[in-house]
Formats: sequence, C-alpha cells, structure tokens
Amino acid sequence: GILERLDAGEIVIGDGGFVFALEKRGYVKAGPWTPEATVEHPEAVRQLHREFLRAGSNVLQTFTFYASEDKLENRGNYVAEKISCQKVNEAACDIAREVANEGDALVAGGVSQTPSYLSCKDKAEVKAVFRKQLDVFMKKNVDFLIAEYFEHVEEAVWAVEVLKESGKPVAATMCIGPEGDMHGVPPGQCAVQLVKAGASVVGINCHFDPETCLKTVKMMKEGLQAAKLKAHLMSQPLAFHTPDCGKQGFIDLPEFPFGLEPRIATRWDIQKYARKAYDLGIRYIGGCCGFEPYHVRAIAEELGPERGFLPEASEKHGSWGDSLSMHTKPWVRARARKEYWENLKPASGRPYCPAMSKPDGWGVTKGGKELMQQKEATSEQQLKELFQKQKF
Amino acid sequence: GILERLDAGEIVIGDGGFVFALEKRGYVKAGPWTPEATVEHPEAVRQLHREFLRAGSNVLQTFTFYASEDKLENRGNYVAEKISCQKVNEAACDIAREVANEGDALVAGGVSQTPSYLSCKDKAEVKAVFRKQLDVFMKKNVDFLIAEYFEHVEEAVWAVEVLKESGKPVAATMCIGPEGDMHGVPPGQCAVQLVKAGASVVGINCHFDPETCLKTVKMMKEGLQAAKLKAHLMSQPLAFHTPDCGKQGFIDLPEFPFGLEPRIATRWDIQKYARKAYDLGIRYIGGCCGFEPYHVRAIAEELGPERGFLPEASEKHGSWGDSLSMHTKPWVRARARKEYWENLKPASGRPYCPAMSKPDGWGVTKGGKELMQQKEATSEQQLKELFQKQKF
Amino acid sequence: GILERLDAGEIVIGDGGFVFALEKRGYVKAGPWTPEATVEHPEAVRQLHREFLRAGSNVLQTFTFYASEDKLENRGNYVAEKISCQKVNEAACDIAREVANEGDALVAGGVSQTPSYLSCKDKAEVKAVFRKQLDVFMKKNVDFLIAEYFEHVEEAVWAVEVLKESGKPVAATMCIGPEGDMHGVPPGQCAVQLVKAGASVVGINCHFDPETCLKTVKMMKEGLQAAKLKAHLMSQPLAFHTPDCGKQGFIDLPEFPFGLEPRIATRWDIQKYARKAYDLGIRYIGGCCGFEPYHVRAIAEELGPERGFLPEASEKHGSWGDSLSMHTKPWVRARARKEYWENLKPASGRPYCPAMSKPDGWGVTKGGKELMQQKEATSEQQLKELFQKQKF
Amino acid sequence: GILERLDAGEIVIGDGGFVFALEKRGYVKAGPWTPEATVEHPEAVRQLHREFLRAGSNVLQTFTFYASEDKLENRGNYVAEKISCQKVNEAACDIAREVANEGDALVAGGVSQTPSYLSCKDKAEVKAVFRKQLDVFMKKNVDFLIAEYFEHVEEAVWAVEVLKESGKPVAATMCIGPEGDMHGVPPGQCAVQLVKAGASVVGINCHFDPETCLKTVKMMKEGLQAAKLKAHLMSQPLAFHTPDCGKQGFIDLPEFPFGLEPRIATRWDIQKYARKAYDLGIRYIGGCCGFEPYHVRAIAEELGPERGFLPEASEKHGSWGDSLSMHTKPWVRARARKEYWENLKPASGRPYCPAMSKPDGWGVTKGGKELMQQKEATSEQQLKELFQKQKF
Repeated sequence: GILERLDAGEIVIGDGGFVFALEKRGYVKAGPWTPEATVEHPEAVRQLHREFLRAGSNVLQTFTFYASEDKLENRGNYVAEKISCQKVNEAACDIAREVANEGDALVAGGVSQTPSYLSCKDKAEVKAVFRKQLDVFMKKNVDFLIAEYFEHVEEAVWAVEVLKESGKPVAATMCIGPEGDMHGVPPGQCAVQLVKAGASVVGINCHFDPETCLKTVKMMKEGLQAAKLKAHLMSQPLAFHTPDCGKQGFIDLPEFPFGLEPRIATRWDIQKYARKAYDLGIRYIGGCCGFEPYHVRAIAEELGPERGFLPEASEKHGSWGDSLSMHTKPWVRARARKEYWENLKPASGRPYCPAMSKPDGWGVTKGGKELMQQKEATSEQQLKELFQKQKF
Repeated sequence: GILERLDAGEIVIGDGGFVFALEKRGYVKAGPWTPEATVEHPEAVRQLHREFLRAGSNVLQTFTFYASEDKLENRGNYVAEKISCQKVNEAACDIAREVANEGDALVAGGVSQTPSYLSCKDKAEVKAVFRKQLDVFMKKNVDFLIAEYFEHVEEAVWAVEVLKESGKPVAATMCIGPEGDMHGVPPGQCAVQLVKAGASVVGINCHFDPETCLKTVKMMKEGLQAAKLKAHLMSQPLAFHTPDCGKQGFIDLPEFPFGLEPRIATRWDIQKYARKAYDLGIRYIGGCCGFEPYHVRAIAEELGPERGFLPEASEKHGSWGDSLSMHTKPWVRARARKEYWENLKPASGRPYCPAMSKPDGWGVTKGGKELMQQKEATSEQQLKELFQKQKF
Repeated sequence: GILERLDAGEIVIGDGGFVFALEKRGYVKAGPWTPEATVEHPEAVRQLHREFLRAGSNVLQTFTFYASEDKLENRGNYVAEKISCQKVNEAACDIAREVANEGDALVAGGVSQTPSYLSCKDKAEVKAVFRKQLDVFMKKNVDFLIAEYFEHVEEAVWAVEVLKESGKPVAATMCIGPEGDMHGVPPGQCAVQLVKAGASVVGINCHFDPETCLKTVKMMKEGLQAAKLKAHLMSQPLAFHTPDCGKQGFIDLPEFPFGLEPRIATRWDIQKYARKAYDLGIRYIGGCCGFEPYHVRAIAEELGPERGFLPEASEKHGSWGDSLSMHTKPWVRARARKEYWENLKPASGRPYCPAMSKPDGWGVTKGGKELMQQKEATSEQQLKELFQKQKF
Repeated sequence: GILERLDAGEIVIGDGGFVFALEKRGYVKAGPWTPEATVEHPEAVRQLHREFLRAGSNVLQTFTFYASEDKLENRGNYVAEKISCQKVNEAACDIAREVANEGDALVAGGVSQTPSYLSCKDKAEVKAVFRKQLDVFMKKNVDFLIAEYFEHVEEAVWAVEVLKESGKPVAATMCIGPEGDMHGVPPGQCAVQLVKAGASVVGINCHFDPETCLKTVKMMKEGLQAAKLKAHLMSQPLAFHTPDCGKQGFIDLPEFPFGLEPRIATRWDIQKYARKAYDLGIRYIGGCCGFEPYHVRAIAEELGPERGFLPEASEKHGSWGDSLSMHTKPWVRARARKEYWENLKPASGRPYCPAMSKPDGWGVTKGGKELMQQKEATSEQQLKELFQKQKF
C-alpha cells in the first residue's frame, strides 16, 4: 500500500500529465480536457500508462481527471452521447489496473474540482458528485485515492471527507501557489485543513513550475509543523517554466495552452526538481501537465542512488548524456558529461520572442479587459458579471 | 500509389520523427538512435504509427532509420544479441502495414546514410548495405521507397540507384541546408543528380528548421528548373527553431539532443510551415525529428481547405484554438481566434537563457577544440585524425 | 530653500549620476569613482551640471561623491599628489554654485559612506571625516545638505547628526533595497532612525532600478506612518533595469560596471518612474548612476502638467516622440505618438545574451568562490577573511 | 595631413556621433537632427569635441551634419529665424578648430545627403547646395573634407566632385549595407564610382552595426581590388547592435530613435570592432550614432599596441577592467581581467522584451501599413504616393 511504502521511508514516484500528453497525441480536446479516451481509445491510454510505468512510476492514476458527472455533462457536446460518466471511470480503472499488473505499481483513483462547486452548489450536492466517482473506484478496488487539482481548500476538504468514507488512504493536492487558495487561505492553512479532514499525504499539483510548487509545499510543511500535525508530502508540478505566473497559475499566461512549447522543462531541469523535492523531505514525487515519460524517468534516475535501482526505460538512456560518448563528432562526444548538461542554458531559437509574459486576467493586468473588447459576442459587462458569478 | 496521388495534384502528408518521439517515450536510445524497438516493443511503435495516421499522415514510413546492418553492428552493444538486422526491418514493415491498413495510408520503406560510406568503403560495398534492407522491403511489399537523411549526394545517388532496382517509386531527401552537401555540392546540383539517378520525388529532411528547409528545397526546385528536369518536391524538416545552425545543422547546436525543448515548434509554427511549403509547390509535406502527432495534424488542418477534409484527430482539436470558446475565464475565451495564435510571440519562461547559441564544431567555432581539452581520454591530435578520417 | 519648496507641495527634481556620466566622458575612473575631476577638468563637470540644469534639475549636487579624505587617500594612487580633499570639495562647490546661478537651482553639498566606517573606525573618527567635508560646504554656503549612498543606517545616522550641526536642512538617502540595510535593519526602521536623527527628507538612491527603489521608499513611508513621523520622501534610483539584483544591488551583477549598456532605461521608462514616484507621494524625484540629462528631462516632462512648465531642454524634444511627425518615412512618422512608445518592448539586438543574470557574491551564488579560484594572487581563505573583516 | 598619415600606414581614429550624443545632452532635436547648437550652445559642442579628442580622435569633424541650406530651411520651424546656414557652418568650423588646436587633431569639413536630391532636383542644383557648404569650409581652411551619410551613390559622387574642386583630400562614406545603395548599386560598385570621382578614402558610416558595416567595407575593398583601384578604407558604424536591420538600416527598427538603449554597444564590443577593422586593412576607424567618448577610447586602447601610445582619457581607464583590481568585494576584483569582459554575455534586465525586432517599412513587413491605419491625418494612398515620390 501507499502508506506502507511512505511510512517505510521509500520514495514513491508519481506519473505525468495525461491530458496534455494525450492532447498532443490526438485523443484529448484542449478546453474541455475530459478523459473520454478511456472508452474511445483505450489503447492510447494504456500505452501512456505503460510508458510511465516503464519510466519508473510507482503509482498509476486512473485517467479520471474532470470525469465527474457534472463536468462531463457540462462539456457534453464534446463527449459522444453514449459515453456515460460511469463508463469513463470504469474504463479508466480497468486500464490502469491492467498496466499496473505488468509491474509493481499501485492504482490511485482520482477526483478533481467540480463545476458544481464553482457554480455554488451546496456541500451535499458537491459531495454527491465525488461519491459517484468513488463508487466506481470502490467497485474496481483501486489501491488508494487522490483528491487533486483544487483551487479552493473548502472543496478539497469536502472531497477528502467523501474519499475517506472508503477507508482507503487519501492523498490531497491543491493547484495553488504561495499566495494560497482562491479565497485567500494560505498554503500552510490549507495543509492543516486537509490533514484534519483525513488526508495522509498532502501537497501541490499542476498550475505552477517545479520551483514555485516546491516553495508552496514548503509552506505547507511549515504549516503542519506549526500545528504539530504529521503527513507525508507530495508534489506534482508542471513541466513548464512559469516564473511569470500570477496567483492563478499558467492558465492566465498568454501561451496557455497552445504556445507553451518554449517553456517545456528539460530532463535536467526535472532532475534538479527531484533532488530539491527530496531534500525538502517530499517522498511522493511526480508530475502534472507537461510531464512526459522521459521527465518521470529523470526523477527516477536522479533518485536512483537513494532507491538503489533504475527504471526499465533507463535501458534506453545513458546517465547525464552518457550515450553520446560514442558519437562520431568529438564535440558531441564532449557533451557526454554531467557538468555540461547541468550548466547548459538552452537557447530558444526564437530571437523575436521574450523570456517572460504578463499574465492575463482581471486585476492582474488590463489584458483581460482589452482582449474582451476584441471579443464581440459578449459585452464587457456581461463578462464581468459572468466572471464574478464564477467567483474568480 | 504515391506517384498517382502526386501526379493528380494531391497533397501527401508525411509522418513525424520516430527516433525523437520514441526516445521521449523510453524506447530509443539517443546517440545510437537505432530502431530495435520494432522487435523489443512493437506495441509502442504501433501506437506511434497509429497516432500519425490519425493525425493525417498519408504515408507511414517503416521505422528503419539507421537499421542498416553496418549501423546496427556498429552500435551492437546497444542492441540485444539476438535482434538481427533482418528482424528489425521485417518487424518495422509488418507494424507499418498493420496500421496503414487501419486507414488509407501508404507504406514507405526507408534507408538512410551508412557508416560504410562515412568510413570510405567503396560503392559496391555501400550499395550492398542498402540492398540488404531493400530485400526486406521487397519481401514485405512496401508501396514505395525513401532514401533519406543523406549528408553526401554521392551516397544518396548510390542509394537511389539501388532502390530503383526494385521498380518501385523512389523519393530522396538530403539533410542539408542552403550551403549544400558536406562535399560542397549545392542543393540545386544535388536535386539534379538525384533525379537523374531515378528519384521521382526529391527534397530535404531533418537537420534544419522549417524555414531553412524550405529555403533549401526552393534551391533544389530552381536547380531542377534550370536543368529542365521534373520531379515532385518534398520537405520533412525539424520541429525545432534553429536559426543559429551552421552548415551541419542542429547536431552542432549545444542543446543537441537533450536541451532542445525551448526550440520546439508550436502547432501554429507548423501551420505557417505547411502554408509556405504549399505555396512553394511542395506537395509531399511532412516532418522529421521533433514532429509529434499534433504537429502533423497542424499540417493537415492548415491544408484542410485545399484537401476538402480534416484528419480523424481533428475531432479533438478546434481550429485555431476554437475549443477555448467555452472556457470559464473570459480572457482565455478571448484566445479562441486565429489572430491571437498567429501573432503570439511565445515566452520561454527562461530569463537566464539566451535566444540563440553558437554551434560547436571544427572550423565553426573554437568550441569544439576547447571542449576537447576537457575530454581527457583522447588527445586532440587523435581526435583531429579521427575527424579527418570521417571526412567531417 | 528646499524645505520651503517641498512644504509648499512643489515637485523638486534632482539631477543624475555624475560618476557614471563622467566615466563615459573620460573624466572619472571606474573602481575608485573619485571626483578629482572638479580640480583636473572643471569644464567637464561644469558642462554636465549645465546639462542637468537645462534638463530641469532644481538641485545641483556638488560633485563630492567619495570625496571624503579617507576615500581619496585610500584611492590615492589614482589622484594626483597635489589634489587635496579640501581642493576637490571646494572646487565642486564653486562649480555647482556657478551653474546654479545660471538658473533657479539650489546647491546641495553631499557626503556618502566612508572607508572609515567599513573598516570599523569608531563613531568619533567617522564623524570627523564627515565634518571635514561639512566645513567646506559651510564655507561655500551650500543651500542644503545630502547624506547619500549609505548601506548601513548606523553610519547614515552619524552623517545626518554631523550635517545637522550646520543648522541647514538635511536630506538622507540609503542605497538599500526592500531587504534593508547590510545589518538587516528594514527600510521602515531606517527611515525612522534617519528622521529622528534630524533628516527632513528621506529616501533611497542608487543600487537598484526605479521599480525596486520605489518599493523600498514605500516601505520607508509606511515605517514613518507607523511611527507617526513626518518627512518628505525622495528617490534617486539607477537608470538601469536590475530585476535580477540580490540584496546588495547592481554591484554584484556580472555586468557591473562595464557591461550595463543593455540595461539602460529609455526616456519612457523614466517617465513611468516619475509618474509612479509622484503617485506614491514622493516629491523630490531624481536619479543616480546611469541617469543622463535626457533622463532627468523625462521626469520634468512627465510631471510638466503638475508643474505647469517644461524645462529649457524640452525645446529640443517633442513630447512622446512628437518630433518624428515630419519624418520622410510614413512608418517613422507613425511613431510620433504616446501609445507607441509607452507599449514598445525594445529589443536588445543581442540574441546570444540572456535577459537576466545571476548576481555574484558570497552566499548569493557560488560564483564568487569560483571566480576566486581563477584569481591567483590571493588565497580563498585570505579573501574570506578580508571579506568578513569588511562585514559584507 | 590625412593622406600623409594614412599613406605612412598610421591608424587614424575618427570621432563619434554628434547628433545622438547631443540629443541626449539636450541640444539636438531628434527628427530634424540639425546642428544649430553650434550657434545656440557652442559650449556644449566644444565640450563634446574635447571629449572625443581626449578619447583619442585624430579627426574632429565639423558639426555640420544636415547643415545644408535646403535641410535647414526644410526643418526651419525648428531653427530660430536668425540662425543662417552660413552661421551654423562657420561656427562649426571655429569650434572644431579651437579644440583641434588643443591637441594634434585634424579638422574635417563634412557634407551629407540633401533633401534636394531626394526631391529629384537636378545635378546642378544639388551640387550648388554642397558648394555653399564648401565655401565655408574653404574660408575656414579645414584640413580635409568628408562626404558622408549617402544612401545613393549618384548623390555621393556629385558631392565628391564638388568637394574635389577644393583641391583638398576627400573621404566618402555611404550609409548602406551589403545589399547596396537604394537604387541597387552594390557596395563594390559604389566604392569604384567614389574613387573614380576623386575620393582618396572610401567606406561606410552610420545605419548599421559594426559587424554589418565591416562586412560592407569588405565588399567595397573587393570591388576596388577587382577594378585595380587604390584607396584608403574607412568605417564609422553605429554603436548599436542591429542584426535585425533590413536594407535601410536602423531607422526602420521599431526602436528608432527613442528606444535603442538595449542595443548600445559596450566598450568591449567596440574593442572587437576595432580589431576586426584593423585586421581587414581599414586604417581610418571611427564611429557614428551611438558612439560616445568611451567608445572612441575603446578603439584607441585596442589599437594601443599598434600605435604605441594611449589616449589622454586612458588615465581614467584601466585596460580590460583593470581598475577594479582594488575593489573591496573579491568577486568584483575577479572581474579585473580580459577574459571576463571578452566573454561576458551581458543581460538586458528586460525579461519582457525580445532579442530582435521586425523592421517596419513598405515591402519589409506589413507593419508600415498597419501603423498607417492608426495614423488618421493622412490616407494610406497619400502616404504611398508620398513614399514613391521619395523613391524609397
């Protein structure tokens, strides 16, 4: 079980981001970001699981992101009529379990934030949404549960409370930065509330780059210490460099979601992240949007000395560029060393592009407002009301 | 057949780069870049073919890059003993055919430059290497043949001559830039020689970004016109921005091959490429290293109006960001339009990194020499001799 | 007098940085940064004063930066034997007064941090150093006094106490950022101590860019408010962009002092600074290193509406690029408008250079240590001791 | 005389750009760029001459740029009524001679391109304009003459022909790049025509950065060699990095003229330029717009070994940062060496700005057209006609 591993001091390696990876492979639509591929194209989902397993993942998360009933309905026009919420969740469990059995991985059933909460439904209604997914996870007997990608700790707590009904271990991660949740609750406070609600593992996923993510987990750790609470720590950041993000993360960056390429982390960036996460005391170390199998392998390779073994996919990877040592060109051979890759400041090949962007969004810049003016379908006033209704 | 399609004025969309895509998925080793995955992990190769097919590829190239016997032996320590050259090539044909049959695609058997040529073996010996692969392609009855990734037109001509023995149509692409091949033969001359040797389609693949690649194909086109020769044109560039390349392309860039992320092209970059290629008269339009399925889809979508249909994977993609039009945040909705993505100058999120690099290499910069001095195993003199023996 | 103007709510415009401007003109040596030019080349100093006056400066500071006796002796090998401390200070006063009389400007005598303090001399000794300069200022009857460029509030307080002996108004600025002085005293506390010591005007000069400088002055303002103290606020920042500075400012940037060109602020950057400073309640607005006459003019032009007049040098400057409206090229004429210059993101023309640097320094990066290893004259241990002796 | 020096193999160091330097000091208006300061503020012009002399200039050019009668009248609203063309030119000669006599410098009278030529006046009329300035130069007995800043070789030839009437040596530089003059005459041809017209020194000034400028002078050199003509070579480039320029140089860059700061060359950039110019056989080495006194000093210091002496202003400058060797911080001391400054890639401190810009202009980008649409005063058609009338 997950807790046995973590309690024993083991490093648990998570997997990477399914919606972004499968969007690039042609199976997920950006915007809705829903996981109907589990039913439509199980072979593609299976293959991605397999690649993460091979790269070193100890946990395979069911591909159930945004698979709550309200979300799937909300985005209904994108999902074929006959694909029910239950089918999507069941297929996700089956595929994950099938691949997990090919190795030594755990299966984690995952829930994430809901449209119901954002549209101000009450606690009972929101909890009912989570419970529907939980029913599938119990039926399929996943190994443990993850509540992830929450911008409001209130909703995350509700999710944890529902998941705890199962008796299985629960991990909970929020997609917030150092400024805290959307209602202003600081990270330390969020961690405390989540642990009190029953989470055994807490941390951060998505929305920010590894550096910002670790900074926020550190604040969670300090919050728990101050409250004399114990929990395992977890981080699953973006594989994008986003130092220019505002409070709400990479979604507000002008490049989201179709121009993020220049921000993609290298494997060496991820090795640095893995080392820092480890040094900070985090033992559940994975990734989110942007993480491809080779990024997960980078975590496993960096922490190879601590773990005593390398993942299967390292058969096809020389440590620190070592596989270049046989190259015909001497200057390429000269790249087969740690110092080279550790210190490389990779160029973008884009001299007409800047290094950083101003995020859009009300209150952040006037960018949102200006962009609105170019969008004729809706008046600015309508948008503002819509925006306020959405609370953020 | 390929010629029927091209002769009829159809646009033929190629596929993307297997070695880079599968390296990131954990099945190919950077450095050797050999395709033993066709035997070791056919499911991974099959899935990638499927994704390209779904993205719009009309041609599936057998994953036989660097699968000549001399190369596989050369890199023998990386390939398990029992995986013979024949097995690798046969498996590649079988997988490509299996997936091609799922749609309407052609299978192309491919050969590429050989260690035999680089180590100065004679014409007969080099041709024998190509003939060995050709035997498999004939046995497996591929639809046509591609000679690709040649830095010396002399070797490319030999390859075309061998492939023509089959009676099947032959396409030939070189991995050179506007400065011509490694012996100084300009692109226009290269094209003339290739067509005279029997190629029906000529062009450029790999080593340079789309812009440079198209510039070089244009020079080929002009060379053919001047010689009053006719051939179809083809381009399969990198999906990396490499304006700072020297004569030998992206291999000499300090970021090759493990730090190229900031250079990855967006889908919009690729749409611009597809349009420019089309306007230039190129009708076989595909990609090489760095091209993922979504890049190929971008070609198919850009040329959708000309072709009259979209690829299957466009079910999961709104044209020009259209799928964002339902986003909850108004400023993200405002990104659901062509002008936005067309004009975006995406930031790298890397303020400590430059926009361009100086390539390494003898004669290009003194970088090669200096790097050498840090590499103690071999003396500079030994390296120089080795280098000269290798001719470049 | 200065206080009459400030008390009446007038905006007082300071001048720019003499050592950097005269270094580029060939009269000051970088490193020592001493002002012996007042004796050696009075015509050059006079001309620079005149340009600032013409650009709108209401205060001409005597060019007495680092003109304390201990500093001049310390840097003695750079200053010709016969140029005494007294001569340098007297000449500075005479030149400033001569030019001030050409317009309506005040003359301010300035003192700055001393080697005596840094080498741990006691209060009496340090005060004696300031007193020596003050004697000259009194003899030459300057209009008011400025204690500027202090990294330690303790020394700044001593300077203010000495200057207050004169009965003249005293302004005091520190060259610190939001992290506070080198002993860790936060900006708000520094301001309180300076006002209690007798300063009528407090603020920040040098070491950081306008944005950081204003942030620090804001902290001073808040500190004074909390302590229910009143004082006028003053800012004289760098005209360089330095978002990447550490605690000790631009000296630690790798570009200091001979590679700062790409960081130079445009006139539009300075207009933004002037507006923000005004909005923050600062009424003594000037500049330090990097400020050239046209930067000072930009302050005067931005605040022209509030002041009701423009400086003399605006005869040779159209507001917001207006002077381009007669250009022969239409696209250059199209630049004659505020929105153009306000929104321009100026390119560096340097694609091989990054946007930001890591500062050097013990404790900041390991850069200091590594650079040391290349510096053979002194052992690392010696340097460390030297460093600790210097307290920072 | 200039020819004696050059014939003897001496290096002759030019001066820097007056209009840009004096614009920043408040005496020249950007847009008209006329030199009425010689009459209005002779002390400012004198001081700048003095700084260049002190920095090592062997030639002081009269500040008569754009001082032809047609230009001054054209820009009449900027120049006070009573300042006649003759007065401006005479004052320029007097000031230059006064300062030249303080050292060992030559005075060169300069003419530049005229509105008369651009508005299609005939040869006789254009020559009459040059002759009017020449009359002053003869009366004031300058040492030699320079025809500079010509975009059309035809006009430059006319200028040289007029200046040769004086019997004094004539140098001629064009402000063109490798693509040649505005009528398409390549640099080599331009050089041939200028020498045939009587120029003893030919080369390039303004509009492009040092690298591009040297490339163009090299083409001139090759043109002369091919024509078996002899002349001395001269270069006076911008002190701005402009790799992104189009055919018409830095005027079309979006940053011209008020946002060029991030492009300013460092002293080290200029030392590299001086060395390359020397290696190319150029012996008259100076600068144009952007060159400040410290840039000229950098030329003199780089070529100090060849010349056997340093300029006066080097008293205030340590070679290669040597003056930092006494700094209190060890990591700043570590910058006191050639390798440090030679290899520094200076950061811009501007992470929101790109490295390169797209130039404006008809036919270059559609920028010109778009900008026009925002400029209501003139219709696009009117602008186009105006543009065509202007020939470029």
